[in-house]
Amino acid sequence: MRVVVALGGNALLRRGQKLSAENQRENARVACRALAPLAREHELVISHGNGPQVGLLALQGSAYTAVETYPLDVLGAQTDGMIGYILQQELGNELPFETRVATLLTQIEVDPHDRAFDDPTKPIGPVYTAEQAEALRREKGWTIKPDGDSYRRVVPSPLPKRIFGVATIETLLETDCVVICAGGGGIPTMYADDAVPAGRRLVGVEAVIDKDLASALLAVDLRADALIIATDVEAVFSDWGTPQQRAIRRATPRALAVSQFAEGSMGPKVRAACSFVEQTGGIAAIGSIADVEALLRKEAGTIVSLEAGGLDLVGAA
Amino acid sequence: MRVVVALGGNALLRRGQKLSAENQRENARVACRALAPLAREHELVISHGNGPQVGLLALQGSAYTAVETYPLDVLGAQTDGMIGYILQQELGNELPFETRVATLLTQIEVDPHDRAFDDPTKPIGPVYTAEQAEALRREKGWTIKPDGDSYRRVVPSPLPKRIFGVATIETLLETDCVVICAGGGGIPTMYADDAVPAGRRLVGVEAVIDKDLASALLAVDLRADALIIATDVEAVFSDWGTPQQRAIRRATPRALAVSQFAEGSMGPKVRAACSFVEQTGGIAAIGSIADVEALLRKEAGTIVSLEAGGLDLVGAA
Repeated sequence: MRVVVALGGNALLRRGQKLSAENQRENARVACRALAPLAREHELVISHGNGPQVGLLALQGSAYTAVETYPLDVLGAQTDGMIGYILQQELGNELPFETRVATLLTQIEVDPHDRAFDDPTKPIGPVYTAEQAEALRREKGWTIKPDGDSYRRVVPSPLPKRIFGVATIETLLETDCVVICAGGGGIPTMYADDAVPAGRRLVGVEAVIDKDLASALLAVDLRADALIIATDVEAVFSDWGTPQQRAIRRATPRALAVSQFAEGSMGPKVRAACSFVEQTGGIAAIGSIADVEALLRKEAGTIVSLEAGGLDLVGAA
Repeated sequence: MRVVVALGGNALLRRGQKLSAENQRENARVACRALAPLAREHELVISHGNGPQVGLLALQGSAYTAVETYPLDVLGAQTDGMIGYILQQELGNELPFETRVATLLTQIEVDPHDRAFDDPTKPIGPVYTAEQAEALRREKGWTIKPDGDSYRRVVPSPLPKRIFGVATIETLLETDCVVICAGGGGIPTMYADDAVPAGRRLVGVEAVIDKDLASALLAVDLRADALIIATDVEAVFSDWGTPQQRAIRRATPRALAVSQFAEGSMGPKVRAACSFVEQTGGIAAIGSIADVEALLRKEAGTIVSLEAGGLDLVGAA
């Protein structure tokens, strides 16, 4: 089988943990131990989030004032290098020496007319005072919104439109190489208007693409058999946070479409899973990274498929 | 032909320039315009330096004190993501849409017994007072040496021993993909003593591998026809900085072996070129990135080959 596993930010950094190199490495090691059996048996593509990591780079960049903080596309590429390296090394340590593992940078095109650009929503970097916020709006053209008593920069989260380099990923999969790619939802890019003789010019965009939606598009483009969205909770729950909460074990995209899930949390994961299943007829699973083998066997988590037969709830702990 | 081009730090950031994202992008654009004709005609691998970039990350990390600065192997991986992305995007803009360009992270093994570990020499990160230096020696075990009136951390620069992932690079070259890899001399790694059941464990090392020596080893492993070391000077000079300085146009490794070149500058470039030529019988060229096509045609720079017939000097401007 060809399998895409999207590693959530919480699979790489547990909630409340300090963003130290040691914590990231330890969590990556645990995740890679869980992933190694999949790498042995299947064509495996690993994508990952980068929210906390790109936030740290923005904070570090702001703290060092001699050089202006780099744009978000560049910071995202930096996190791809960092996280990709740690995953590549730790996964390599769990596999026979001759197994190939490669990390590729992935540029993804977004639509300049995506409505997300009209209403940036993703907070990033330091908190500011009202005065700092005003100055940054003026000087850098940033969108800055209130965040409790202070202010934070917000950036758009446009939909992924086209993934560049899919053929390169396929080439590597066909040589039994595990591929780590599309980190942080991919590096957001678009075609600039200032056409050059060689054709349109691709440029970076200060935005953040949702990593689950990017992973779903990647899984579609790669004609994957399964998309596994790995996080730190065991399944999708209905009525989350209420006494009625129940783990959803099996569902069709249609059954999930009528339910509400938290934006910035389960919402995009459910949409990504449904999108993949609807477009390919494949299987999507949402659940804990620790259960990743069982997820692929449809024995854990929330399994989304066309044949699931509605919404099959079970009582949760 | 299969060609490895090692882009010097000064090809990406001109001497004295501020390390802004804009300057790096502009220089990368110029470099990629020069490289595009090679990408059209040959199998092309691009490696690059990362000295100023990794230094900036160390400074930013020190300025933000809530999280401890990441180890050098991780910072190096971050620069691979950043520089690789910028080169991949700018080179892609100079080439037909269908041309593949991929950036791969490259781990390189170093020898724990390399003598470089006994005498770290590469300064990195902020300058410290004597008191700070003493505290860092004690707390982090860093080697800190005087640097003018202040102090700086120094790290070892061991030789590259083995490049991981060469087969993956070859797979991509065989599908006409331009490969950007071995950034910053590759990510330094070694096998740790704490053997695990799955075998020896590869770990990151706080060191910096010379990017020209790493590129030479890469060119040997890839059985490249040519190694081009691109920098911001037009050639290697004998008697550099004296009235007798002369550009060296053609030389054999044996003829160069008796000359002295500056360490941390031309020295490693000359050694890298000679090492490649001696091991493969191929051609190495050292010169300006602007001349990269002419370098490959042996019409500019310093050409090192077994047939060059001694040291052929010409008068310089």
